[in-house]
Amino acid sequence: MINVAVLGYGTVGSGVVEVINTNNDIVSKKAGDKVNIKYVLDLRDFPGDPVEEILVHDYEVILNDPEVEVIAEVMGGVEPAYTFVKSALLKGKSVCTSNKELVAKHGPELIEIAREHHRNFFFEASCGGGIPIIRPLIECITADDVQEIVGILNGTTNYILTKMSKEGLDFDTVLKEAQDLGYAERNPAADVEGYDACRKISILASLTYGKNVDFEEVYTEGITKITDVDFKYANKIGYSVKLFGKAKKSEGKFYAYVAPVMINAEHPLFSVNGVFNGIMVKGNVLGDVMFYGSGAGKLPTASAVVSDMVDAIKHLNDNVAIDWSADKLELTDIKNSKKKFFVRMTGDAKEMESAVKSAFGESEIITLDDLSGEFAFITDIITEEEYEKAAAGFDNIITRIRIE
Amino acid sequence: MINVAVLGYGTVGSGVVEVINTNNDIVSKKAGDKVNIKYVLDLRDFPGDPVEEILVHDYEVILNDPEVEVIAEVMGGVEPAYTFVKSALLKGKSVCTSNKELVAKHGPELIEIAREHHRNFFFEASCGGGIPIIRPLIECITADDVQEIVGILNGTTNYILTKMSKEGLDFDTVLKEAQDLGYAERNPAADVEGYDACRKISILASLTYGKNVDFEEVYTEGITKITDVDFKYANKIGYSVKLFGKAKKSEGKFYAYVAPVMINAEHPLFSVNGVFNGIMVKGNVLGDVMFYGSGAGKLPTASAVVSDMVDAIKHLNDNVAIDWSADKLELTDIKNSKKKFFVRMTGDAKEMESAVKSAFGESEIITLDDLSGEFAFITDIITEEEYEKAAAGFDNIITRIRIE
Repeated sequence: MINVAVLGYGTVGSGVVEVINTNNDIVSKKAGDKVNIKYVLDLRDFPGDPVEEILVHDYEVILNDPEVEVIAEVMGGVEPAYTFVKSALLKGKSVCTSNKELVAKHGPELIEIAREHHRNFFFEASCGGGIPIIRPLIECITADDVQEIVGILNGTTNYILTKMSKEGLDFDTVLKEAQDLGYAERNPAADVEGYDACRKISILASLTYGKNVDFEEVYTEGITKITDVDFKYANKIGYSVKLFGKAKKSEGKFYAYVAPVMINAEHPLFSVNGVFNGIMVKGNVLGDVMFYGSGAGKLPTASAVVSDMVDAIKHLNDNVAIDWSADKLELTDIKNSKKKFFVRMTGDAKEMESAVKSAFGESEIITLDDLSGEFAFITDIITEEEYEKAAAGFDNIITRIRIE
Repeated sequence: MINVAVLGYGTVGSGVVEVINTNNDIVSKKAGDKVNIKYVLDLRDFPGDPVEEILVHDYEVILNDPEVEVIAEVMGGVEPAYTFVKSALLKGKSVCTSNKELVAKHGPELIEIAREHHRNFFFEASCGGGIPIIRPLIECITADDVQEIVGILNGTTNYILTKMSKEGLDFDTVLKEAQDLGYAERNPAADVEGYDACRKISILASLTYGKNVDFEEVYTEGITKITDVDFKYANKIGYSVKLFGKAKKSEGKFYAYVAPVMINAEHPLFSVNGVFNGIMVKGNVLGDVMFYGSGAGKLPTASAVVSDMVDAIKHLNDNVAIDWSADKLELTDIKNSKKKFFVRMTGDAKEMESAVKSAFGESEIITLDDLSGEFAFITDIITEEEYEKAAAGFDNIITRIRIE
């Protein structure tokens, strides 16, 4: 029998308990030993819940019990998670976490401590919820020079954008609805400002390139400025707007950003809708592969945490190498990266067309029949810097969205 | 330095050599040791090709060289691949293969020999080309009771069906075009009759359920009867026709089949077009996850083979457990499985409607404006057996396609 503990009995924590109990036969068979939850840590009490029998309020009980070999940390936030996880690893316990704040901030250090102690620090659930993506990056895509990793990494914003796209609603209306349904937090900044996606792409990029991507250096733009009118144009030309987290290697330089982008039906992530997530990896020999599934939610996320626990049990005294060093990956300013831009402008399309083309290169003009006083266009392929320079010559730009 | 050998210098074999050479720094770093191709086996000569320096015609040279620790078998076909692979494993060499015929027929035995000798038999490239799917099934999706695994597993037939759908062409025209482009073999039976997809779903189902699915027992129907008229109806109602390989667990029973099916845009595999493959796994807690990418092709397939070689080198004297026993998984006759059916019938829709509904349950009638003398309908959800019974009462059925 293998004893495990779960830190936090919130949404994901109660999911982890449910998955281990519901699928105990399967989980124990895959782990090679009967899996038993010895403790659940939470500050709260849960009167009437069977968890009461194994509930503890004091982390020291778990930390100092040598029978506990694997810990699931599903509390979220950097502290006290960091202190708890670090002390567990130092005591020779393996840790599996869904906590992207912790992993983005302290990943290399915790990986290194686990390595030194022949234990494991796993974090499959920190990106893409239930979707296997961390382990495939570490264990499967090992023959390729990865050119690019790009994902729809936040279910809340994808739900909002999908709803805006399909129902023609504005951002505030959909956000309120998402909050009422529990899909968005009352303070939605972590999602809608792109901070959550930023941590996730930083983790994925660090694993892809083996060096540490500092999430605070990743250019991050949220979806709060996307409007229903943007979607009218997008729908007309067969595009959709998605919040992308992207890391790219080009001519030996590395770029990373989080921003809303327009994509068309040719893009493998085009049909990733609602609360689903999708992550695409482009290898130099593999081409594009895509991973798709529930990017959040109690049980899918818990499934990923428990899969990590199974792997930690299979490798109890045996560190699985994770190539993510503390060395910093130098990111290049995205001003040098090239793409097309979708731009909305007040004024008359015909009158402005020649000025637009001379500033932004060979551009495609788009007008909406039921909207006067403005028009839109798609620029030539230019750098971010060239775009900024050209845009500085106009005082009538309403918005611009990158095209991928 | 680790010495490896490649058996077969055809499309995939030359791809393996190219990937190991092109990405040698990355491959060697991931493997933890410099990877060196010591031999390539082929009966043919390749005058002027650098491979000449390491080309051998006699397998005994490789088998008896103790320096060769990992072998890539990319010849295809059951023999002599089976004899070569078995003898390599018995000699303590790990083997990685892209050969689905070999894996479908001798998988459990070769896995067992590898286990006994503390070596590995890996076959990521046997299903889904470059898409990581075998390793995710073994290593990632370990917390779930998997309800279903379903995939578009054959790029040739998906190319044909996509082309028929988008361009309104008939089967024979598109097949000929695919043959001229090299996407289909001159003898296309393995692809278009579903035999290739059948081997692949048998491998995936065996890994999912831990017991051996005998591919000869899997109901298999190809795409040769799909016509351009079927696509006219499908397009009208927003459906597409795909060749599915599917294995399903329902009420403790197991079903497996290969057949063309109609799916609509809600299905995660709907937008898997052209030569791409997609595989969906449905877990009881994970929900649906989908894996997508190039299902064939020289370099994507070679990328998967080389990833296996990297893993084999990382686990040189250490068997990675693969849960696929020789015990037979009993498959239930698909006559008990329930679904809707798309049916085309000669005659007049209005005249036939009540007879159709009394035989097939609440059915949706579909007519095409430019096609008289026939109509189509979608049945209620019924078993295959109920469908057969109902259909026996009509002599005017043109075709039927399952709906998923």
